[in-house]
Amino acid sequence: MGRVTVRRPVRMLTAQGQRRRPDALAAEEPLELRVAGKPLAVTMRTPGHDVELAHGFLLSEGVIGSRADIATARYCDSVDDTGRNTYNVLDLALAEGVPEPDTGVERNFYTTSSCGVCGKAALDAVKLRSRFDPSGSPFAVTTDTLAALPDDLRQRQRVFAATGGLHAAALFSEDGELLVVREDIGRHNAVDKVLGWALLDDRIPLLNTGLLVSGRASFELVQKAAMAGMPLLAAVSAPSSLAVELAEENGMTVVGFLRGSSMNVYTGDKRIVET
Amino acid sequence: MGRVTVRRPVRMLTAQGQRRRPDALAAEEPLELRVAGKPLAVTMRTPGHDVELAHGFLLSEGVIGSRADIATARYCDSVDDTGRNTYNVLDLALAEGVPEPDTGVERNFYTTSSCGVCGKAALDAVKLRSRFDPSGSPFAVTTDTLAALPDDLRQRQRVFAATGGLHAAALFSEDGELLVVREDIGRHNAVDKVLGWALLDDRIPLLNTGLLVSGRASFELVQKAAMAGMPLLAAVSAPSSLAVELAEENGMTVVGFLRGSSMNVYTGDKRIVET
Repeated sequence: MGRVTVRRPVRMLTAQGQRRRPDALAAEEPLELRVAGKPLAVTMRTPGHDVELAHGFLLSEGVIGSRADIATARYCDSVDDTGRNTYNVLDLALAEGVPEPDTGVERNFYTTSSCGVCGKAALDAVKLRSRFDPSGSPFAVTTDTLAALPDDLRQRQRVFAATGGLHAAALFSEDGELLVVREDIGRHNAVDKVLGWALLDDRIPLLNTGLLVSGRASFELVQKAAMAGMPLLAAVSAPSSLAVELAEENGMTVVGFLRGSSMNVYTGDKRIVET
Repeated sequence: MGRVTVRRPVRMLTAQGQRRRPDALAAEEPLELRVAGKPLAVTMRTPGHDVELAHGFLLSEGVIGSRADIATARYCDSVDDTGRNTYNVLDLALAEGVPEPDTGVERNFYTTSSCGVCGKAALDAVKLRSRFDPSGSPFAVTTDTLAALPDDLRQRQRVFAATGGLHAAALFSEDGELLVVREDIGRHNAVDKVLGWALLDDRIPLLNTGLLVSGRASFELVQKAAMAGMPLLAAVSAPSSLAVELAEENGMTVVGFLRGSSMNVYTGDKRIVET
């Protein structure tokens, strides 16, 4: 199995002079996902929790909706120059009756927009329809609960502490308990890992759970939350315009710039209760 | 043309209470790139400098090597619900004799790894071979020059100042002049925009120019720099293990955690001259 950090010599320069010492870097390796032997996607990720990542990715892409939709997941025999298994190719078999994704799935882009004319808006090509509807979820959190989340998250970001190079995602309950925390060099992967964890724990749809991310809230992260049925996304940094628009369309809540006791609520106000 | 920021009402909560006011969000919209009418990729980007983005993307992917390789670039007639052009679909025509990319190009993944067996390491699938070799470049910068770059960059990040939600990339000369600065909601897009700018200005290969990014240095950013022939990547945040390994393989320099007068040199030491 790949390592989460890699030690390398580094030359550190400061106003006080320079020195050479080994430093820990966040490991980054490609993971190739295959379904029934056919390549589906490759993502640059931090090794570890690959099976969760694969499940979360397929949930996010609308290919699967529950744990039962995957029959098996196994690493292929991809080897490096020294003959060692790289554990960088994961092959998944879908359960009987689950339709295979189009090989060019990447948000159904290649298949839906190959019409040859330019009349189709690009946005339609990237939007996916969720099988779950978070709009009616009574999930609500107090501002005190939200305010405590970033510190809790940071304390559990073990690899970030060592390398400064990772994003984190977490699922949290109405009373602010962090149910799972995952780190990855990619923002999307960290979210896929927590969603995959939930799917493997039979918790999908996550109608009564919030998603917390250490960075920004983009369209794709809101879409991933929606695909898992989640009513709330809280981000330590800024949301994008399209993230807020998609959340509004889906009856979800977006909180941004969650820092200490200050935060911005962009849409879905009803789920934020002032303490 | 799309807007770079979008104003939306927001509920702001602080320890001092709450208020509602309009806030500027970084605009995020999908851009569909087509080559000869065929969809090639869709990226979530901040509107603006789309033609640069397209050129930089095709350079990064190894499809083109100079401005002359593109014959025309034009927005298609994609319209939204109100009949307004979205300017979110860009169609490029390659010059005569330039081979068309495989439609499943996405780092040549779908085409190179559809061999059906698992013997191919995923890494080979994502690595591209550059037509330029930065390893022999005499480009070198002093630590004082490097130390001044992040402040210069921040001063020119106009959209970031308004929204807090954008990444930035810049090209810089040996004496620390920022040649071009571009912002985008996506790290990769910001880099593609500055590379596209350089290509349109006939500056490729950039053998005597450095790349500065406001965030982390990942494998893909090092690869983009390599595809443009650049000898040095400086990042305000952490590099990944694979970013440093790829840079080392290509004879490039990687500087990380560039903050004030402190910085780490991970590989390619010879290009960093202590002041």
